[in-house]
Amino acid sequence: MWDRLWLNANLATMADAEGYGLIANGAIACKGGRIAWIGPQAALPDAPDSLAFDIVDAGGRLMTPGLIDCHTHLVFGGNRAGEFEMRLEGASYEEIARAGGGIISTVKATRQADEEVLYESASARLKNVQAEGVTTIEIKSGYGLDIASEVKMLRVAQSLERDNPVRVQKTFLGAHAVPPEYAGRADDYLDHVIDDMLPAIAAMGLIDAVDAFCENIAFSAVQLTRLFDAAHALGLPVKLHAEQLSDCGGSRMAASHGALSVDHLEYLDEADIPLLAKHGTVATLLPGAFYYLKETRLPPVAALRTAGVPMALATDCNPGSSPITSPLLILNMGCTLFGMTPAEALRGMTINAAKALGRQPDIGSLELGKAADLAIWNIDHPAELSYWIGANALHQSYFAGDPAFAA
Amino acid sequence: MWDRLWLNANLATMADAEGYGLIANGAIACKGGRIAWIGPQAALPDAPDSLAFDIVDAGGRLMTPGLIDCHTHLVFGGNRAGEFEMRLEGASYEEIARAGGGIISTVKATRQADEEVLYESASARLKNVQAEGVTTIEIKSGYGLDIASEVKMLRVAQSLERDNPVRVQKTFLGAHAVPPEYAGRADDYLDHVIDDMLPAIAAMGLIDAVDAFCENIAFSAVQLTRLFDAAHALGLPVKLHAEQLSDCGGSRMAASHGALSVDHLEYLDEADIPLLAKHGTVATLLPGAFYYLKETRLPPVAALRTAGVPMALATDCNPGSSPITSPLLILNMGCTLFGMTPAEALRGMTINAAKALGRQPDIGSLELGKAADLAIWNIDHPAELSYWIGANALHQSYFAGDPAFAA
Ligand SMILES: [Zn+2]
Ligand SMILES: [Zn+2]
Repeated sequence: MWDRLWLNANLATMADAEGYGLIANGAIACKGGRIAWIGPQAALPDAPDSLAFDIVDAGGRLMTPGLIDCHTHLVFGGNRAGEFEMRLEGASYEEIARAGGGIISTVKATRQADEEVLYESASARLKNVQAEGVTTIEIKSGYGLDIASEVKMLRVAQSLERDNPVRVQKTFLGAHAVPPEYAGRADDYLDHVIDDMLPAIAAMGLIDAVDAFCENIAFSAVQLTRLFDAAHALGLPVKLHAEQLSDCGGSRMAASHGALSVDHLEYLDEADIPLLAKHGTVATLLPGAFYYLKETRLPPVAALRTAGVPMALATDCNPGSSPITSPLLILNMGCTLFGMTPAEALRGMTINAAKALGRQPDIGSLELGKAADLAIWNIDHPAELSYWIGANALHQSYFAGDPAFAA
Repeated sequence: MWDRLWLNANLATMADAEGYGLIANGAIACKGGRIAWIGPQAALPDAPDSLAFDIVDAGGRLMTPGLIDCHTHLVFGGNRAGEFEMRLEGASYEEIARAGGGIISTVKATRQADEEVLYESASARLKNVQAEGVTTIEIKSGYGLDIASEVKMLRVAQSLERDNPVRVQKTFLGAHAVPPEYAGRADDYLDHVIDDMLPAIAAMGLIDAVDAFCENIAFSAVQLTRLFDAAHALGLPVKLHAEQLSDCGGSRMAASHGALSVDHLEYLDEADIPLLAKHGTVATLLPGAFYYLKETRLPPVAALRTAGVPMALATDCNPGSSPITSPLLILNMGCTLFGMTPAEALRGMTINAAKALGRQPDIGSLELGKAADLAIWNIDHPAELSYWIGANALHQSYFAGDPAFAA
């Protein structure tokens, strides 16, 4: 006896090597939160009534894996709407900096905020993405930049997972920026991250992966090599913000370290792409930040496609360059701004996002044995997920087989 | 005794010549659906309890006029997700046309659809924009292109107004495209529009304004002069899709005819701007279509600003170039893509959108005597309306003083 059986579903399994993996008139069953049967409804082994405790008629609707948002900075204090407005009113970067803008303003607001305040604001943002079908989200630290504040952020991420029908991957991003108290002493700060913060926070069980920001205005690939070695010594996977504003060689270094993903990539040298393919590193593209920053240089999507590098998409939700909590808009931006096909975009927020989190065996497609994280949509064809903007077509999501979010 | 009194509101009245027209710690009252009092709460003439039948504590939240979406093609049959996907998969325009794509595919689908089917799909889209605070929307015909089908579309618009807490402006867009049965005979079709369709449909009371598409691929400014003269003879205001893909002189012609608005304007000649200013014609900008079509030429926002031409913003919701039902995203796009300030963007969907509909005396700002169409938002500052993407901050909207949409 299965726990639940969905009938009459138009399944986009995302299970094949490309495309949607469509099964028309499909059925899917779960047991113990995992997919126990999937296939054409006509192939069900017996009369449906006898097969499951609960039966759901999907009414011919589209069903996909629950969406996965594999790159977010969902937890932060304050917002940067004032800075946004100043810039549009013509203020210079110097004026904005003098007025307390930039990432350091978010660091200050995050350090000052109570854990409860951070939890409340992140919780509202989490609800937005869940309402559009997300069942797994990655959440980074990186606005604390001291042990207590980084722990506070990651505890919020942990609490969000405890309290909501969502899987949370907690990523330690201590090497996001140099905090004010280390101004001009980036190497000293990185020593502190590697020698003190990383082992202490990892020992608390708050780190699933280690990330860093490789850029002229942050840390170099050479500097970050030590961080990645330290992460590996603790058995933690690594990933990297790389080639967003310039080519700093971050992707080369990260791929050579077996990184799960390299993220942004507008300035990726195409010569580095074979290295990504060789190491199975996912290219995570973040069109929301591209849009918000009015970037004009495009990531090398065609070359990544040709090389067979898996491409993921994510909201990059953060207060400075992507205050975005709409995964469906990101699907459209992947198509409209980056020229991905709707199938590539949807793979980018399902199976390839699962790869970017190192959780492909468990989530990201509708396949036997995987978690029964599902989304049912009020549309006919999966391309409509990328096509419409502002029309949240979610009918009902399920987390580990149980109802999560309804329209 | 007022019908309703809102206390403890952070009012963005949009009533001044520029900016938000902020009133901190404000109060606002309505009587018979209209604003009967507005000002700082401390200036209320008596103890609040004695003043109104119903009292609402806004809890310090931001209150704005209900949003106005002044340019939409909300009613249409089918969708163009298949065409969207074909194009991203590399199909040429010829292949898409052979597969039945383009505007004519929407004309066919709209002609074939029952009025009930059109009503259902438009109703879902209307709910999306209402859920983001819209209380007035303009809806165009223009996918029927014969009398019966144009009437069918405008009847749907009329029914939507009847059944929902929203004001609908019905715009006749018979001169949207040349229908297949008139292929190669644009002038003949325009004669039919002017001599037959316009007077017949106007006589049914289904037309509030007349619009047309002035472009190389549609109708010329010279051709449309006769349409505008005919509209004026019937006492109907005019507006124009102009300078979207090239400079066809549509804005000059429309302004000279006293048009309410000219819409799109990426290719507007700056030399025409004084003419818009002189005739009080609103520049309605449509960043959703700019985004979706990957247009690179920007409308002359700075020059319009300098000349004091009111700028409106709208979703342009349509299945081909802007399948967008998020007015809040359009606020952000006005800022991010077009460089408007958040105050200009909000004016573009309130007071200036009211001007674009010729309804400024009645709606678009929080002023004595205007309709009590209001939106209360869970944010602190109006710039946040443009800043966040995907976070619908609507707390509660009111239509003519009564509760409309709640979060
Ligand atoms: Zn990031
Ligand atoms: Zn239009």
